[in-house]
Amino acid sequence: MQTIIDDIAAQMALVPNKGTVASYIPQLASVNPDQFAISIALTNGEVYHAGCAHTLFSIQSVSKVFTLTLALGKLGERVWQRVGREPSGDPFNSIVQLEHEHGKPRNPFINAGAIAIADAIMQGHQPKEALAEIIQFVRFLANDDSIAIDEKVARSELETGDRNASLAHFMASFGHFKNPVDAVLGTYFHHCSIAMNTQQLATAGLFLANNGINPHTGYAVVSPNRAKRINSLMLMCGHYDGSGEFAFRVGLPGKSGVGGGILVIAPGKASIAVWSPGLDAIGNSKLGTHALEILAQKTGWSIFGE
Amino acid sequence: MQTIIDDIAAQMALVPNKGTVASYIPQLASVNPDQFAISIALTNGEVYHAGCAHTLFSIQSVSKVFTLTLALGKLGERVWQRVGREPSGDPFNSIVQLEHEHGKPRNPFINAGAIAIADAIMQGHQPKEALAEIIQFVRFLANDDSIAIDEKVARSELETGDRNASLAHFMASFGHFKNPVDAVLGTYFHHCSIAMNTQQLATAGLFLANNGINPHTGYAVVSPNRAKRINSLMLMCGHYDGSGEFAFRVGLPGKSGVGGGILVIAPGKASIAVWSPGLDAIGNSKLGTHALEILAQKTGWSIFGE
Amino acid sequence: MQTIIDDIAAQMALVPNKGTVASYIPQLASVNPDQFAISIALTNGEVYHAGCAHTLFSIQSVSKVFTLTLALGKLGERVWQRVGREPSGDPFNSIVQLEHEHGKPRNPFINAGAIAIADAIMQGHQPKEALAEIIQFVRFLANDDSIAIDEKVARSELETGDRNASLAHFMASFGHFKNPVDAVLGTYFHHCSIAMNTQQLATAGLFLANNGINPHTGYAVVSPNRAKRINSLMLMCGHYDGSGEFAFRVGLPGKSGVGGGILVIAPGKASIAVWSPGLDAIGNSKLGTHALEILAQKTGWSIFGE
Amino acid sequence: MQTIIDDIAAQMALVPNKGTVASYIPQLASVNPDQFAISIALTNGEVYHAGCAHTLFSIQSVSKVFTLTLALGKLGERVWQRVGREPSGDPFNSIVQLEHEHGKPRNPFINAGAIAIADAIMQGHQPKEALAEIIQFVRFLANDDSIAIDEKVARSELETGDRNASLAHFMASFGHFKNPVDAVLGTYFHHCSIAMNTQQLATAGLFLANNGINPHTGYAVVSPNRAKRINSLMLMCGHYDGSGEFAFRVGLPGKSGVGGGILVIAPGKASIAVWSPGLDAIGNSKLGTHALEILAQKTGWSIFGE
Repeated sequence: MQTIIDDIAAQMALVPNKGTVASYIPQLASVNPDQFAISIALTNGEVYHAGCAHTLFSIQSVSKVFTLTLALGKLGERVWQRVGREPSGDPFNSIVQLEHEHGKPRNPFINAGAIAIADAIMQGHQPKEALAEIIQFVRFLANDDSIAIDEKVARSELETGDRNASLAHFMASFGHFKNPVDAVLGTYFHHCSIAMNTQQLATAGLFLANNGINPHTGYAVVSPNRAKRINSLMLMCGHYDGSGEFAFRVGLPGKSGVGGGILVIAPGKASIAVWSPGLDAIGNSKLGTHALEILAQKTGWSIFGE
Repeated sequence: MQTIIDDIAAQMALVPNKGTVASYIPQLASVNPDQFAISIALTNGEVYHAGCAHTLFSIQSVSKVFTLTLALGKLGERVWQRVGREPSGDPFNSIVQLEHEHGKPRNPFINAGAIAIADAIMQGHQPKEALAEIIQFVRFLANDDSIAIDEKVARSELETGDRNASLAHFMASFGHFKNPVDAVLGTYFHHCSIAMNTQQLATAGLFLANNGINPHTGYAVVSPNRAKRINSLMLMCGHYDGSGEFAFRVGLPGKSGVGGGILVIAPGKASIAVWSPGLDAIGNSKLGTHALEILAQKTGWSIFGE
Repeated sequence: MQTIIDDIAAQMALVPNKGTVASYIPQLASVNPDQFAISIALTNGEVYHAGCAHTLFSIQSVSKVFTLTLALGKLGERVWQRVGREPSGDPFNSIVQLEHEHGKPRNPFINAGAIAIADAIMQGHQPKEALAEIIQFVRFLANDDSIAIDEKVARSELETGDRNASLAHFMASFGHFKNPVDAVLGTYFHHCSIAMNTQQLATAGLFLANNGINPHTGYAVVSPNRAKRINSLMLMCGHYDGSGEFAFRVGLPGKSGVGGGILVIAPGKASIAVWSPGLDAIGNSKLGTHALEILAQKTGWSIFGE
Repeated sequence: MQTIIDDIAAQMALVPNKGTVASYIPQLASVNPDQFAISIALTNGEVYHAGCAHTLFSIQSVSKVFTLTLALGKLGERVWQRVGREPSGDPFNSIVQLEHEHGKPRNPFINAGAIAIADAIMQGHQPKEALAEIIQFVRFLANDDSIAIDEKVARSELETGDRNASLAHFMASFGHFKNPVDAVLGTYFHHCSIAMNTQQLATAGLFLANNGINPHTGYAVVSPNRAKRINSLMLMCGHYDGSGEFAFRVGLPGKSGVGGGILVIAPGKASIAVWSPGLDAIGNSKLGTHALEILAQKTGWSIFGE
């Protein structure tokens, strides 16, 4: 395994076009695009790294996996009254589908869906309290109390987040929100600004590869059935309108973020985190996707056949 | 395995609401909705049945899996110049996406995509020749020379197929078609009218569960990589705008047809065919989906975890 | 008046960029773009011409004004069960709106609407009979028995009319059509292929400028109220998604065709026909629109103020 | 004229179903639906009233005519870089078109367009200053210094204005806004909350009926050409997706508001204001539209013929 990922890291270093760093959030635009990291946490407890696996980056939309899991814990199946579970066929920030479907987002992984999940988690509490709960949950998953929000990124997002504000006000106009729009947006922008490295991220996702149980701690985070269902949502909706392409090329459930991170689950086998800040046209990490495609081929981990 | 599927068949017989038989094709509307069949072909060669596994039904859109496979064999990766590989987020016969994307269908399993695949297969030949090739291919997959087209159903479709004619002319208006629209529609309507039973269908899909090789005949139908990719398309796009729901509940790649059949692949393990003509609101077999959900739970075959 | 239009014709001859001749119908693509004609028929019976006012051209969508008038005569207000009377905000051949509104076209002047009107006119008759009635009606309006269909253009349209065939089959799939799709398309393509010159066209529209009465013949074609309503539809919907621009610049009800003709009504004053085959990006005659803008300014005929 | 409008007012009093008062703004929901007023200001200086022509109501979207006029005065033709001039074919608060056209509203009379106009008017000033200028301009048009904003309505709108906030943030996300979103919304909600009676409103619109000159004061508000163009926009876009219907039935340029007011221009003849708070399904005053239809018939003022 170590040889495989060392090879992949070496190969990635040679790729000339590393994609384009997300520019719409100023704090993300200044990240050096030449970085690459991969961490693999096996369900048997072993962990492997290559590249800068201890460099923190903004997990952005990868956080939606954790807030969905938290919301399912708090609200159970009532979560599905707030968001659907179908791929949207549209870009991550599209508002067209919201209008046609009366303010109910297609799934929890497009921006509108994750904002609705943030509202569901808050349950009348202040953003500060909701965020404390989210951070606490991510620390618990990663078994690492050092994980924190990058306040500079959060502020940067708040200032440039007109599209997300538009989505939130749009949903609120249907009476779907239980908390003030500004408070929900504050919660959302902050949980997207959690900083992690690939080692932490791979560990945090491990419960999804292991029938809901984190093998490092022995804690049952969710039931086996719920773990499967979160994995199915990651496969179907984890890469916006590039989800089909990712399933076609990689064949594993994953969730990407514009910070360049991707969390990928090989059910029964491993949780994988990759990071490289250069993005492709759809907004997914270019090297990250490439590395995962090679990894899936070399390991035979695709869920669609060896 | 036999006990599991006997139990499932018994359970299905007790479901009071068996869904609604497709009414828009007169020949399909007259089918008795109280029928149920399931066949499981394991990659080790064993086959199990319950219910009326030898009753012929119209496979309809399940045939799209076979025509896609055939087109990939004939054109290779050039197939993706004709159709995409993303879920559409729209009903099976939507034309909105086609207009926004200049006549290129999102994937080969929505109607527009399958019609484009029919055009790609024809390569200037007459419908009769193209259909002979398709039928020959399905017989080869199912290892059964008795498989044939139900001409009454085909004629019935031709007479009521205005929506599909609209989709076909729409694509043709972008200059995407290499054969006359009427010939392409004839080919499409006829391959949708292939009649099979669940036993034949389960066998025909077995190469997808077995890295591209049909274990009954030993023939390599496609490469292991291509088998994976067809499976990924079935998961992402096999049930129209109910694909997310099917992945969430069943967790296996599948392709449904309005005749009430569903072909499902458990990679490395089995090919499963179910049939029950009553449909849910989205157009997928109601009992069929229900039976597959139970089967996936009892066998632990979900690709998303045990 | 003669001086005004002679000046306009002279000015048009000097315009360097005369637009692009419609290319999608082969017979239209071969027309010389350097031609310009204008005819003005006053309600007092006077008629003025400049340019090649006796050269025949394909009236194309201008014919929709005449078929709507005929349909209103045959069906009365029931016409509005078949088509709406709102601008579509979409290009002339868009199908998106049709899907969202269940197969009912927004207005009688977009292609889908005019095809639905053709179906309404046929009332179970053959295309030949329906076309005989339409031609008879246009001859009656223009007071000229020489007007005829250009069969070469009609055949050319039939062969290249996939988009219109798509629209027609789409509407038929909702059960809205009372005649076979091919017969309706035949009727539609043929009435679009009527050949007229500006002198005939200006006379044919004169009843709309004169409270429903053709002053040349004295015949009441429609009631004053119906003339007003047809004029309002021409203003709101006569130039597809360029209708607002035409109202803004010219300020008169008008209907354009891709053959380069435009029929314009100055209520109470005149019926104006212009022709120049070069089109702008939206598909309206470039010089024709320009000439009408100047004419409206010089005459003070805008319906929105002097 | 007095007899005509007295008859109309009497007729309106007898209509049993007076429509539904707008409920989404609490302050508007409490208005008594049984009220009706009409004022007609002729270009010769005469003014006629019937009903409660001195009762103040919230002019809401009718204010968009005045802010467009003001913006044209300040920015000239550059206004059209911010908004288009085509009917939208969508409801007043649709966001779909905005996404398809990259944040540029179709016209200045849908909500998004009017919000963009508010941004254009502000030019870096505070809402208070921009509003002072708008109010001053409306007082000048109506020749009445008593006109003011109803602060209770403005506050009520701010609290319930999520849809408009969504539209504003959406446009801002394209970088189109020059002022902070909250400031623009404040300006917009306040100018919609101007309270006027029909007498004031008819006078304020009179310049549009009189080639740009207010005959009461003799001031040239806009050029004759600009008056025509504002009238054309009112006809094409003044009633959202009911604009075609209004042109068909009334045949005069008009702009309605959800407060139940409508301002209508008979070019060369009169400016008419009607008010009745009950709305039809599209959001236009039910009795108001009805009254205008009768008025247009009795006076022969339709711009489409006598």
